[in-house]
Amino acid sequence: MKKILVFGAGRSATTLIWTLGDLAKQEKWQVTVADASGDLVQQKVSGRPGLEGVEVNVESDEERSALIKRHDFVISMLPWSLHALVAEDCLHLGKHLITASYVNAEMKDLAAKARKKGLFFMGELGLDPGLDHMSALRLIRQIKETGGTITSFHSYAGGLIAEDCDNNPWHYKITWNPRNIILAGQGTIQYRHNGALRLLPYHHLFSSAMPIAIGGKDRYEVYPNRDSLKYISMYGLKGVPSIMRGTVRIRGFSKAWDALVKLGLTDSLTPLGVEEPLSWKQFIAGFLPNDPSYSVRQLCADYLSLPADDVVMDQLEWMGLFSDEPIGDFGLTPADYLQNLLVDRWKLDPHDRDLVVMEHRIHYEQNGKVREIRSSLEHEGTDPDKTAMADLVGLPLAHATRLFLNGRLDAVTLPVPFEPCIAEPILDAMESDGICFRESVVAPSDPPSFHTLMN
Amino acid sequence: MKKILVFGAGRSATTLIWTLGDLAKQEKWQVTVADASGDLVQQKVSGRPGLEGVEVNVESDEERSALIKRHDFVISMLPWSLHALVAEDCLHLGKHLITASYVNAEMKDLAAKARKKGLFFMGELGLDPGLDHMSALRLIRQIKETGGTITSFHSYAGGLIAEDCDNNPWHYKITWNPRNIILAGQGTIQYRHNGALRLLPYHHLFSSAMPIAIGGKDRYEVYPNRDSLKYISMYGLKGVPSIMRGTVRIRGFSKAWDALVKLGLTDSLTPLGVEEPLSWKQFIAGFLPNDPSYSVRQLCADYLSLPADDVVMDQLEWMGLFSDEPIGDFGLTPADYLQNLLVDRWKLDPHDRDLVVMEHRIHYEQNGKVREIRSSLEHEGTDPDKTAMADLVGLPLAHATRLFLNGRLDAVTLPVPFEPCIAEPILDAMESDGICFRESVVAPSDPPSFHTLMN
Repeated sequence: MKKILVFGAGRSATTLIWTLGDLAKQEKWQVTVADASGDLVQQKVSGRPGLEGVEVNVESDEERSALIKRHDFVISMLPWSLHALVAEDCLHLGKHLITASYVNAEMKDLAAKARKKGLFFMGELGLDPGLDHMSALRLIRQIKETGGTITSFHSYAGGLIAEDCDNNPWHYKITWNPRNIILAGQGTIQYRHNGALRLLPYHHLFSSAMPIAIGGKDRYEVYPNRDSLKYISMYGLKGVPSIMRGTVRIRGFSKAWDALVKLGLTDSLTPLGVEEPLSWKQFIAGFLPNDPSYSVRQLCADYLSLPADDVVMDQLEWMGLFSDEPIGDFGLTPADYLQNLLVDRWKLDPHDRDLVVMEHRIHYEQNGKVREIRSSLEHEGTDPDKTAMADLVGLPLAHATRLFLNGRLDAVTLPVPFEPCIAEPILDAMESDGICFRESVVAPSDPPSFHTLMN
Repeated sequence: MKKILVFGAGRSATTLIWTLGDLAKQEKWQVTVADASGDLVQQKVSGRPGLEGVEVNVESDEERSALIKRHDFVISMLPWSLHALVAEDCLHLGKHLITASYVNAEMKDLAAKARKKGLFFMGELGLDPGLDHMSALRLIRQIKETGGTITSFHSYAGGLIAEDCDNNPWHYKITWNPRNIILAGQGTIQYRHNGALRLLPYHHLFSSAMPIAIGGKDRYEVYPNRDSLKYISMYGLKGVPSIMRGTVRIRGFSKAWDALVKLGLTDSLTPLGVEEPLSWKQFIAGFLPNDPSYSVRQLCADYLSLPADDVVMDQLEWMGLFSDEPIGDFGLTPADYLQNLLVDRWKLDPHDRDLVVMEHRIHYEQNGKVREIRSSLEHEGTDPDKTAMADLVGLPLAHATRLFLNGRLDAVTLPVPFEPCIAEPILDAMESDGICFRESVVAPSDPPSFHTLMN
């Protein structure tokens, strides 16, 4: 009997927990799920043989290490800032550890020490980071092995709402960490295009989004992620003229989000110094010229240089920016008020299913010809519990667990799933689950440049 | 003999140190100046009787408390984050303490404990915060005492370059903390105008600057500070329809700074992920459409929607944005590169003198009439050592020291100089130094609203 411990029973852990439970009997596993909320953990394990739930205060050294000591293999789904606590214990107690989070310098250092003790320590085993690496690196390897020279690497991904559940004018609902949605893109966006460094300031990012078709569906748009340049060394793409990773939204989202940025609603620095209750309409009026002869909606449209009947104005109206609803507690930042509003407006309905899309587009020269390969994944969730996001975060972790405990990952040396000896069996197992990237080779089209639409 | 200890011998401490030295004999003081740099402290005290310099590691508990123990009265000119260390010692050892920094919650708490022990603990005794409070509150008191009702409070201040030393197209040089210059205004700007909450996002701040005359000189402009609303409770202005504090620049600065913001050069979040040397021209080209048939200056003018011969383009050219000079070390943020460039470009020349301007404009109703009182200060420095900034930070501290040690501040109860019993004698003493606010009552003109020029 192998004893597996999962820390964290939150939204993105559901598929992982249930898959481990399904495999427990045939694999001879005992699986424990530990979370700060005993209620949450019971919801996730109840009625599922092979799973045991426990409540734990993971910041208590005693509770945490006592729990780890009783197991062989640990999967941490905790917020990334808590991984190091778990990793220190695992190193000390001689337990294997995997996570779905970025491997920072601290975790890299712990992983190196763990490898010397013969332990399996790995991060970036979820969706993004995780599946994005494994699928992109497979393509890159295939092209290089067949003598191709890569001239452009673009990779797009997004967590969205399934087409038949898309019933609001933003074409968006919250399927992952809402704070990351509110603060997305803050800073300087950097990528390469046709050999040149390309930089975009935050206040131009969302107006730069370009229409795009994925998997034959011409309904998406994409804007560049904050830092695409770090993938040059990560993916071995030095000298490749065009490199960009981008975020996918359903078309129409980014122009409206740009309006929120232009208004100033995504600022997370300044607590509002107002000491009387304020409605959303009053709050928005604060950002606009003060002219009582026009409605706030009209003043806002003028401010944004949009016609009053523009679809963006309908999106803003729908979310309640011109309503008499109170903005809530005193002393929060604009970004806090916006988050509280959108967590309510963009809530998943009981039968909603989410959608994850990912597409890599690689241009390469081979035998004097230029080709473009596209590799795309579209995966829909089952319901608001078993989401596409939870599937694609949890299944790579579950397969890595199974493969390691069956002795099939001995040759792995890196703390991230970059080597074929781990990526290939995981991608194969995902295919058996019905989660496949579909590849096509097309006549190369220019990758979008996000500076053409500026101003 | 009273023993006075000054921590910190940096740029803004010069006038304070020399004034304490000048007063030492008549007041029967021994004055010690302590700094991490023994060289710096010797520069400041050498040839000046009454002053002794010592090198100290202020973060060493032993060194710091040994030094404090030997003195009666401590003035901390250290970075604000180090004040608490000094304050804890002063509380423990029974020493008086003043600073020129904002009194945060921690210092407020320590001040309350100190007062119970009969100690004089006070912050915000410099220029801004300091002189701004004392002079504004005196006007507010005068108006209230004569039955006036305040309807608008505006207060503007700026650290500038004297008119006859103003020899660059930005009309600006660095006379204070360069980091604060680069990051000025980031967040959401908030003030009140005609009874309404007014909010401005950072990316609209500098284009909102309004022309303004101060002291009869029609050469300035002003943009609103980040948080004017906190002065409602601080200054007892509840119900006053218009409240704004603003930053003064010489006209033409803000439009050019707006160009730097629009380009994205003030972002301090994202380290640049470039691994080959980059010239300023290449860096700026990164933000612009990539079209080799136009010069970077022309592309930049188009991006900013400015004519190619606009004065802003000359300001950008002058600072070197279109030059082949390298931007420097790898991996810094755009704000870091901008700061390094401007610290060089905006350096004071050996004979440069700086200028501090401050003006309060208060509208009030009295006996059925509406009046506006303006109270303005213009003060020029002597040279790059004895700057106007150092005078106006240091003299209130020096006078507070003298007044307290002469037993003239016994009635003070607040940890900030808001009470007439401290503000009036300090303002009177400043007048004896020739530093006076000039008051005039004028027909009221509408205070500028910074939303009228938006878009």
